[in-house]
Amino acid sequence: MGLKDIVIPQDKIFFELFEQQAEVAVSAADQLVNIFTDYTDVEAKYHALKEIEHKGDDITHRAHDELNRTFITPFEPEEISRLINTLDDVVDFIDEGARFLVIYEIGKPGDGMLEIAQCLRKAAEEIRTGVKCLRTLKDTKRMKEAIIEISRLENEADDLQTKALKQLFATNDPIHIMKMKDIFEHFEEAADRCKDVADVLTAILIRHT
Amino acid sequence: MGLKDIVIPQDKIFFELFEQQAEVAVSAADQLVNIFTDYTDVEAKYHALKEIEHKGDDITHRAHDELNRTFITPFEPEEISRLINTLDDVVDFIDEGARFLVIYEIGKPGDGMLEIAQCLRKAAEEIRTGVKCLRTLKDTKRMKEAIIEISRLENEADDLQTKALKQLFATNDPIHIMKMKDIFEHFEEAADRCKDVADVLTAILIRHT
Amino acid sequence: MGLKDIVIPQDKIFFELFEQQAEVAVSAADQLVNIFTDYTDVEAKYHALKEIEHKGDDITHRAHDELNRTFITPFEPEEISRLINTLDDVVDFIDEGARFLVIYEIGKPGDGMLEIAQCLRKAAEEIRTGVKCLRTLKDTKRMKEAIIEISRLENEADDLQTKALKQLFATNDPIHIMKMKDIFEHFEEAADRCKDVADVLTAILIRHT
Repeated sequence: MGLKDIVIPQDKIFFELFEQQAEVAVSAADQLVNIFTDYTDVEAKYHALKEIEHKGDDITHRAHDELNRTFITPFEPEEISRLINTLDDVVDFIDEGARFLVIYEIGKPGDGMLEIAQCLRKAAEEIRTGVKCLRTLKDTKRMKEAIIEISRLENEADDLQTKALKQLFATNDPIHIMKMKDIFEHFEEAADRCKDVADVLTAILIRHT
Repeated sequence: MGLKDIVIPQDKIFFELFEQQAEVAVSAADQLVNIFTDYTDVEAKYHALKEIEHKGDDITHRAHDELNRTFITPFEPEEISRLINTLDDVVDFIDEGARFLVIYEIGKPGDGMLEIAQCLRKAAEEIRTGVKCLRTLKDTKRMKEAIIEISRLENEADDLQTKALKQLFATNDPIHIMKMKDIFEHFEEAADRCKDVADVLTAILIRHT
Repeated sequence: MGLKDIVIPQDKIFFELFEQQAEVAVSAADQLVNIFTDYTDVEAKYHALKEIEHKGDDITHRAHDELNRTFITPFEPEEISRLINTLDDVVDFIDEGARFLVIYEIGKPGDGMLEIAQCLRKAAEEIRTGVKCLRTLKDTKRMKEAIIEISRLENEADDLQTKALKQLFATNDPIHIMKMKDIFEHFEEAADRCKDVADVLTAILIRHT
């Protein structure tokens, strides 16, 4: 048994965990789309999202443990750490935004919310694609496409938020504005973290290909 | 005189500074509890808290200087840097939240504030315990208990904030809501940073035991 | 040709890019002062600021690419990375704050805004001076003065924000308060990031002189 046989399994653990985290991000964004597609039983639907977030937390802790235990890693430890954390943040901000739907007892969220949720789902799907490319770093073309698309979607989320905020402030209802602004900011933050994931993917691409 | 004699004093400096930072965090949280226990002379009490925060800043700067000067450190420089910064952040967010009590001229803060302050004090006390365990890394059981308890307290702070926000939004007073929400968010952020300290302690535990 | 001949050009690229980033920060802060000095055609003036921010983004990406490609760097990669990111953040928060002037259709910003913009411009100018000192690390006296002045200006921005918030909340107009508070928080955040740049400069000073 050579050194390589020992090393590869450790590498595989990270790729496995990254892919699981990315899958959780897609599930969380998908559940967010569900919430806004049929805005009924919001509390129950939120609890299902919370379950997904807990699953994500477990994977994140597992990944951190592996990183602290492992001396031979497929990329720089800092890159791995940033990737784990930014993937986790995407899910956390989706969850936190949805949590405030329940806390604030938002009765009717308005169109902007569904659009931003769909935008987050697309970004999570691109993250999943980009993360899958990490294993071999062979399909750099597809990986670069995913990175560019995530960046574009983050700008789209920005524009959606801007449009929604303008509509919102036109309502002249300060308490409703405060609540919705808070929720939009969480989803906007989730989109920013998708972009952070794309930045880590870019750094890995440059350093390792 | 062997190498060890030179090394140990440098290690001790970091442990000393971590413990001082943790002690400052306990003092800051304790002063926050004082403010809400007897909500009179708030401005004077806040200035006492600000003194504590300045003391924390001095220790933080000292710790960063040591880190930049020292080549042999007890843990990875990144771990030390994160520990210094997260300990400092706990105090900063406690201070900043209290500062807004004065700026916004909050006359009567409501019960939720005292509860969250007590929660932060407990978390700071657990941080102090966990940080003390760093010197020898022998009492890993007690250290793990502290880590788990900090994590539990962060969830408790979350729940306290949720409860307080619900009560707050029921008042229908937008300007008061805005002010209080701002303050609660600072204390919630302080609790999040306590959790970040616990995460660094966990990383050190895994890597060094 | 010795090793030194190979190394120096790579060093120079980083210094060049840091200086370009600092110059962009000064331009952005200067354009912010322009906006508030003569508060007309705000949207057009904001677009000019956005152009500056895009230029900053290009330099930031270029700097990250160099860092990921380069094995021999003038300072620790973590220091370089932090410097690139904090310089970029300064510009981003200036841009984002100004963006909300347009989104919220702020008709008349009040005096506090001009003062905070002038404070940010001074801080950006000190950053430019401090960053220029990085090339040779010879004029440590001037560099330390810049660091202290940035720190002082961050406190000044804090005080300006406090004063402005007090005046703002006295208006009793919740929607206007919400909008203006949001914008002030972005500029305050920009000042915080100036302080973060000063912290990186301090770390480099301690480690490399």
